[in-house]
Amino acid sequence: MNTKPAMLAIHGGAGTILRQTTSLETEQAYLQALRDILRAGEVLLAQGATALDVVQACVCLLEENERFNAGRGAVYTAAATHELDASIMEGHTRRAGAVAGLRTTRNPVRAARAVMEFSGHVMLIGPAADAFAMAQGLEQVAPDWFGTPQRLAQLRRVQGEGGAAILDHDGAQCPAPLDERQKFGTVGAVALDAHGRLAAATSTGGMTNKKPGRVGDSPILGAGCYADDTVAISCTGTGEAFMRSVAAHEVSAQMRYLGRSLEAACEDVVGERLPAVGGQGGLIAVSHKGELCLPFNTEGMYRGWVRLGEAAQARIFR
Amino acid sequence: MNTKPAMLAIHGGAGTILRQTTSLETEQAYLQALRDILRAGEVLLAQGATALDVVQACVCLLEENERFNAGRGAVYTAAATHELDASIMEGHTRRAGAVAGLRTTRNPVRAARAVMEFSGHVMLIGPAADAFAMAQGLEQVAPDWFGTPQRLAQLRRVQGEGGAAILDHDGAQCPAPLDERQKFGTVGAVALDAHGRLAAATSTGGMTNKKPGRVGDSPILGAGCYADDTVAISCTGTGEAFMRSVAAHEVSAQMRYLGRSLEAACEDVVGERLPAVGGQGGLIAVSHKGELCLPFNTEGMYRGWVRLGEAAQARIFR
Repeated sequence: MNTKPAMLAIHGGAGTILRQTTSLETEQAYLQALRDILRAGEVLLAQGATALDVVQACVCLLEENERFNAGRGAVYTAAATHELDASIMEGHTRRAGAVAGLRTTRNPVRAARAVMEFSGHVMLIGPAADAFAMAQGLEQVAPDWFGTPQRLAQLRRVQGEGGAAILDHDGAQCPAPLDERQKFGTVGAVALDAHGRLAAATSTGGMTNKKPGRVGDSPILGAGCYADDTVAISCTGTGEAFMRSVAAHEVSAQMRYLGRSLEAACEDVVGERLPAVGGQGGLIAVSHKGELCLPFNTEGMYRGWVRLGEAAQARIFR
Repeated sequence: MNTKPAMLAIHGGAGTILRQTTSLETEQAYLQALRDILRAGEVLLAQGATALDVVQACVCLLEENERFNAGRGAVYTAAATHELDASIMEGHTRRAGAVAGLRTTRNPVRAARAVMEFSGHVMLIGPAADAFAMAQGLEQVAPDWFGTPQRLAQLRRVQGEGGAAILDHDGAQCPAPLDERQKFGTVGAVALDAHGRLAAATSTGGMTNKKPGRVGDSPILGAGCYADDTVAISCTGTGEAFMRSVAAHEVSAQMRYLGRSLEAACEDVVGERLPAVGGQGGLIAVSHKGELCLPFNTEGMYRGWVRLGEAAQARIFR
């Protein structure tokens, strides 16, 4: 087997820092969650799992962790419901699947994978997407499974404040390291496996108090998730700006056609193109050459990465 | 006013030819419909309308014409319902709006425009998107308004035949010039106005007998619709391949980063990149330099174009 150095990166959303009011325990809990998920992905990679399976497994774990805004722990819409979006893409085949507006499927990224594998389509939305996931044997949960008291308190606080969509106050005593009032909650993973194959996956609950039916960049291939032979990318931020910039595909295009390094392409997209349309957030990316890049233009981003055989790294702040 | 040569192109879907069984009257009726719509757009352009308003107006007229699969005359889903998708994008601002899964809004492209202008978001889906459109004062219609006896006959025929999704037989005595069994029904428009501004819009009823909830490339920015300072593009074809290729944004990237002409970029995308993932169909594009290109890799595409001051051209076959 012609093995290459396998690697993996994950993110849990980007935003502004609340370092001064965050307890060390809370900060450490976030970092530990990221490291645990990296460790699970690392084990899979070491066992020879495909990049596609690894990004799906990591995003599933992020969805299951209620600290992150995807799956369990997803934020509430203005109607106090949950609407979940996810996508997954395999680089060398450019196969892809996406779902938007899920309400009952426990792991949206699994639904995206099922769409890719078994639907004959690339994207399914709304109740029909949940029905498809159920028919594929994916676990369905009661709508209140996704919610947590903290997320509901955020919704009530925002609605009391007039409901600006991205202001999702956290009423908890120990606030999260990134200010939930200013955080773009999405999770994602990118991987390069031992066979040199790339994959990316993204999942989100969207924005607290979002208009029902609003879809951001997370399930849009080329915007919040993209993979080809060159690079795999997962984004988090003001979704609308990422959609208008076709941000993830733009990174790939600059690498393929300008010969830019992963870092230079990411720098242009996150540092120039996104801010030009008001875009705040970040992305994680891995290239076919084994470059890793995790840039953001906010004050912080929950993120972590690991190269097989090296120690896993988790960070929140710059 | 520093005016440039304004121009406009439209399409009504791509597919295989039924020339031998098509009456000359039917063929002429399609060509006349395309010319009438071009004429309406031309008048607007001559009056100084923005590219954005012109593409919206032309797509509205295509939606209103029951010969084309968008708005009235949209194909049926497997559940004998209609689910309509549309998008619109303005080049110089990269503002954009998109809707998917509409069921009651008469003109989906108007809903996409309203999302762009008034929602604070880029994409809304499902019943919430119809509700938003209604709240914006856009006309709502009974679901059966979209259907026609011909489209229903197509659905029944497909379902009787086992339901292959893209086989949408036309039971009419005078078949359309492009075989409805093999046609990718979408409509779209691109324009360059006298101020050098670009815009694109796309609208569709999807595929006959499609799985409810399926979304193709039409409402996906970068896939079935895209505009920036360089080029405006609207696509039609096997939506899944256009999504996996991020086809419209790919044309822009090749022009911006490889310095390719519009024609060379379109040739690569329609002739190479799309077929590589099984993509059939075509696109219409106009560049900031005033280049027009309407390539397709099927046997035909309903299409037309006009440069202000020149005669409008409409074509179906190669």
